[in-house]
Amino acid sequence: MKENKLKEITSRDVDFAKWYTDVVRAAHLADYSSVKGCIVIEPNGYAIWERMQEILDKEFKKLGHVNCQMPLLIPENLLKKEGDLVEGFAPEVAWVTKGGEKELEEKLCIRPTSETLFCDYYATHVKSYRDLPKLYNQWCNVLRWEKETRPFLRSREFLWQEGHTIHSTREEAIKETDRMMDVYYRFHHDVLAIPSIKGKKTEKEKFAGAEYTLTNEALMYNGFSLQLGTSHYFGQKFSKAYGVTFTNKENKEEYPYQTSWGITTRMIGALIMVHSDDYGLVLPPKIAPKQVVIIPIGDSEEVNNLSKEIEEKLLNNEISAYIDNSEKSPGFKFSEAEVNGIPIRIEIGKRDLEQNIITFVRRDTREKITKQIDIDIVTFTKNLLDTIQKDMYEKAKKRRDELTFKATNLKEMENILNTQPGFIYGLWCGDSKCEEKIKEIKGCKSRCIVDDKEIDGNCVCCGKKAEYNVIWGIQY
Amino acid sequence: MKENKLKEITSRDVDFAKWYTDVVRAAHLADYSSVKGCIVIEPNGYAIWERMQEILDKEFKKLGHVNCQMPLLIPENLLKKEGDLVEGFAPEVAWVTKGGEKELEEKLCIRPTSETLFCDYYATHVKSYRDLPKLYNQWCNVLRWEKETRPFLRSREFLWQEGHTIHSTREEAIKETDRMMDVYYRFHHDVLAIPSIKGKKTEKEKFAGAEYTLTNEALMYNGFSLQLGTSHYFGQKFSKAYGVTFTNKENKEEYPYQTSWGITTRMIGALIMVHSDDYGLVLPPKIAPKQVVIIPIGDSEEVNNLSKEIEEKLLNNEISAYIDNSEKSPGFKFSEAEVNGIPIRIEIGKRDLEQNIITFVRRDTREKITKQIDIDIVTFTKNLLDTIQKDMYEKAKKRRDELTFKATNLKEMENILNTQPGFIYGLWCGDSKCEEKIKEIKGCKSRCIVDDKEIDGNCVCCGKKAEYNVIWGIQY
Repeated sequence: MKENKLKEITSRDVDFAKWYTDVVRAAHLADYSSVKGCIVIEPNGYAIWERMQEILDKEFKKLGHVNCQMPLLIPENLLKKEGDLVEGFAPEVAWVTKGGEKELEEKLCIRPTSETLFCDYYATHVKSYRDLPKLYNQWCNVLRWEKETRPFLRSREFLWQEGHTIHSTREEAIKETDRMMDVYYRFHHDVLAIPSIKGKKTEKEKFAGAEYTLTNEALMYNGFSLQLGTSHYFGQKFSKAYGVTFTNKENKEEYPYQTSWGITTRMIGALIMVHSDDYGLVLPPKIAPKQVVIIPIGDSEEVNNLSKEIEEKLLNNEISAYIDNSEKSPGFKFSEAEVNGIPIRIEIGKRDLEQNIITFVRRDTREKITKQIDIDIVTFTKNLLDTIQKDMYEKAKKRRDELTFKATNLKEMENILNTQPGFIYGLWCGDSKCEEKIKEIKGCKSRCIVDDKEIDGNCVCCGKKAEYNVIWGIQY
Repeated sequence: MKENKLKEITSRDVDFAKWYTDVVRAAHLADYSSVKGCIVIEPNGYAIWERMQEILDKEFKKLGHVNCQMPLLIPENLLKKEGDLVEGFAPEVAWVTKGGEKELEEKLCIRPTSETLFCDYYATHVKSYRDLPKLYNQWCNVLRWEKETRPFLRSREFLWQEGHTIHSTREEAIKETDRMMDVYYRFHHDVLAIPSIKGKKTEKEKFAGAEYTLTNEALMYNGFSLQLGTSHYFGQKFSKAYGVTFTNKENKEEYPYQTSWGITTRMIGALIMVHSDDYGLVLPPKIAPKQVVIIPIGDSEEVNNLSKEIEEKLLNNEISAYIDNSEKSPGFKFSEAEVNGIPIRIEIGKRDLEQNIITFVRRDTREKITKQIDIDIVTFTKNLLDTIQKDMYEKAKKRRDELTFKATNLKEMENILNTQPGFIYGLWCGDSKCEEKIKEIKGCKSRCIVDDKEIDGNCVCCGKKAEYNVIWGIQY
């Protein structure tokens, strides 16, 4: 059985794209649907999203954010109010033109993002500085009519969280933009074990309508980059476009300052592409919906009792454990736990019990650890989960560092991209023409500006004095 | 300030409909949006929905259900496969006809419900009895192109949970239909303090596509009925329409049995219309996002320290308390806590402290309770919350009983409906022509069949032998 299951997954080093979709399918994270470009997020995948929501939502609320829900549909007229936004999104929205049996007088788009709706709301609800700040967030689905789609990474409909805040001062809004980027950064590093890099998007790559965009960029196993979360500073751009004003402390009418920030189900794709292997999904313990599976081998009372005892102990100590009591063979269960990325597998067999031992198997290294039955199982498991979390981060960081390069001219950049893509540090003058020229090499784009102070050196493209230190890469 | 706030709410007995929307607006539960028929669920309203989700989701998972996410869009072709369903929903769906800049080859509707998508998924994922049951649920938004809308009660877009399960036997599916109705029933009674009545819908009123529909019907303060949650038994109707089959234990191919069940944000509307009053929202403690507000009066260190001490004690004992530290006047804070339906308000004043007393105010009865500072505040508050929960249920039950009538003929029914609508028990022969005739009286409909065994008596409409004991009423 085991071999049969493993055969389904293409080797990561042979065909990365196929390996990715094989893992998505084999671990039952998502499936294609009858709606082109839209996926079904299956229970195994959705449970990861629920974990992400649980952890992040708690963080947001700690900082004073509250959740709300804006409508799914946006009237064309409302969308059009902010010029950059409509230009950025109009080519990729879905339009509702018929409601019930009637043609609509004004067509409605399915939200690709909700700046317009929040502004429309704030315009009637923000009157005085006393109403500010408003720290609103919503968890919802959005839709972008993408041409090429891949499960989790780019699908027409996806789930996300979008925070939209509004402040009385520029400083406060800038601080909010920063602190939310930090929340994401810590989440990626500490929970997802993904060593993302923080930076600022270039003018060309920033969010349509933003004054600037902060981003967390992560490197996938194959050297491609993935944008994992963004935080936008809008200044007064949207408040001016949507006529949001407030009376400040000096009793003067003023435009407030806004931010927005979001993360999506794409992070599930990142977990696969950073951590997983040819045996299936590998999940960091902190994000794994189930951390420990206990697999009893053979149907003996002693084995079953010990399994239950261990499960109970672990559950009572906040370790999400479960017994696989299904009718399948032990070999099949091992393989299934492996494909599904359960961080620790505990095997309890009758013969082992005679020797007073049980076996722990780490999913990340596939290492088997044999222990005496009388060990402090809770402490051992807790420590092992911590070790796995730490080791996974270190391993991902090592890979990232191995695939991080430096280029001082276009030729070097081209060589790197032709050999092995990765994060490429390259100085930049700030001219978007250079960005466009670099893009001609395999579609390589600026990922983020990591430094813009006292840059000493020349632009990787035109050779003129550089203003920015930038990471370049091929994106998903 | 207080009077000013209260003025905003029309009296419940003067204009119930206006009172309802006044409460929705004054408590900042929801607001109208620029999209006709769609509302913005504001943080106060959304927090109630989050509490509902938290409690119900835990219940669902305890029973073995798992969450997933189906696409938002349904191709026309797929929707059309089950005849009754498409007939029931086609007049009230929104159609996407354009994606990006292109006309679509096949139009897509925004899901009004997701039976079709679940069936489409099950058709490829259910093969053997070993794959069954699948106990899937999703929390999502749906859209129905209603003509007349009211916040929470009937809006074009609403949030809900839809469970879709598939089983190998008829018995198991029937059991599931029952147990989920019981989950809802317990939730309405024990958490929302709403004494709903369980029953079965008539053929005319059942869900399009169901073999039968179970329902929980609640009575609002004005005597109108509201359907609070339904659980449908589909038999093999959908599995046949969508070609879902499985190999049973006898190795024969068979059609599986399905159910679906759902509750919506409409329950927020019910909380208003059952419990609330002319001072605003009244929430049962078990569903209130915030159970206790502490209002310090005057800015003294002693008052502030005691406030903090009490807040901490309550929070440590799982009572969600907070201090209102805003710049507003105490009177305004009292009124705001009242409008927002916080179950208990604790007032701590400097002069009271000199006499060693603090004041508790119950939101439901508006009763003031003065206590010595040295009481066991946690126990007292816990007991008071329990008392409020119990009293609110009893009060709602008393109102329901007062507005529950019995009619033996059409004349009696008409008299009741012209005087004071409510739940009207009336025997019924089972002929839908009688249902239609009854509907002519102020649109009165069958709410549910409460009994269909050994009925002794005659149909309230035609006078022939009755088969069912039915509750009739005017619905929202």
